[in-house]
Amino acid sequence: MSSIICTIDVVLMTLKNSVLHVALLKRDHAPFVGVLALPGGYIHAEDDVDTRDAAERTLREKAGIVSPYLEQLATFSGRARDPRGWSLSVVYYALVPNDVIAAASHLEVVLMPIDKVRGLPFDHQKIIETAVRRVRDKSAYSSLPVYLCGELFTLPQLQGVYEAILGEPINKVSFRRKIEELDMLEAVEGAMETGKAHRPAQLYRLKPRYSQHLSLTDRALNAKSLTSH
Amino acid sequence: MSSIICTIDVVLMTLKNSVLHVALLKRDHAPFVGVLALPGGYIHAEDDVDTRDAAERTLREKAGIVSPYLEQLATFSGRARDPRGWSLSVVYYALVPNDVIAAASHLEVVLMPIDKVRGLPFDHQKIIETAVRRVRDKSAYSSLPVYLCGELFTLPQLQGVYEAILGEPINKVSFRRKIEELDMLEAVEGAMETGKAHRPAQLYRLKPRYSQHLSLTDRALNAKSLTSH
Repeated sequence: MSSIICTIDVVLMTLKNSVLHVALLKRDHAPFVGVLALPGGYIHAEDDVDTRDAAERTLREKAGIVSPYLEQLATFSGRARDPRGWSLSVVYYALVPNDVIAAASHLEVVLMPIDKVRGLPFDHQKIIETAVRRVRDKSAYSSLPVYLCGELFTLPQLQGVYEAILGEPINKVSFRRKIEELDMLEAVEGAMETGKAHRPAQLYRLKPRYSQHLSLTDRALNAKSLTSH
Repeated sequence: MSSIICTIDVVLMTLKNSVLHVALLKRDHAPFVGVLALPGGYIHAEDDVDTRDAAERTLREKAGIVSPYLEQLATFSGRARDPRGWSLSVVYYALVPNDVIAAASHLEVVLMPIDKVRGLPFDHQKIIETAVRRVRDKSAYSSLPVYLCGELFTLPQLQGVYEAILGEPINKVSFRRKIEELDMLEAVEGAMETGKAHRPAQLYRLKPRYSQHLSLTDRALNAKSLTSH
């Protein structure tokens, strides 16, 4: 049995100016030193309980973030993806509101619009494409996009987040019906969005039981969203 | 960086007497020698191109099978799951018709009904539960169950396969509508199922373009099938 390089990478995504962005960092060691890449590193068998723990450590150390949603995406592997030798990377993805990344003040974190991502080392381009597809597929059926909102949000704001991820406008009536069916939100009593010209809108938050868990529906929010794989 | 044990496991599933079964093998080395477990082993960095290649080799060597459908399930990892030390297993799942397993004549392969599986080593019980959940979730929206049928099958046979996986009866009319929507089957000209008392039924097969790919629908076949994760 020859030795295999075991790493973790995290696809940290956020919404900025209504566009899905991914967090990148300049690599501080070879190979590809100085090149923008996904936050990642070796699994530390001495410290990490499992790969999820390693992903949480990576997010904490490299971006100063504890993500309320973190899910394993897939493992990318093989002889060809890393010049150092046969490697595998267990990849997780996380969704956070942009202000959480900003508040962490890790200034080395670069947010890149997902369709502007180019020239990444290893198979990071393919990893990001896989993550974006997963988020799109899953968002059509679940409460996943809520993790991109702040703690409190209005229904029009949430609809905007769904539309930004799914990449298409959603009919307001069917959106409201779907959100009701998902039964994931609670109105925050007395809390209204203010400071806008139009009349104040009710603020909502995720029900506590869906923190870390998704509310799912059996019918897609948009007409036809699945990609074959 | 301490060394990490890198393995592959395969959850090979089939339908036998209309019940979902999983293939198990007695382990031929420590730890847990002689105990039934999932077919698996070390990743061979010298031979395997990537983990998928390792999974194909495992199926070939341990069960004599080339599976037309093989998908990565997830990676299971940590300090606690293997007495030898920190380990990770990249797990794949495969679906094949029962007669493919029988024809391979690997007599050491034991088919166990999935709800009778007990006392497996490592975290193989949890791995199998994860695989069954994935197959159920995916079957409600796709052509996945076709891989459990032989090359040719009638529509009532296919409906029986869907019902066996989803664990509930499906209305015949909505099943036919869904199959039409999935647009995955072609009638085999002149081929009819014979030898039955009732009138012969048309035989179908999967369209070639869906070999290795799934046809997907955006609305579940059954009423409410998704499990939260």
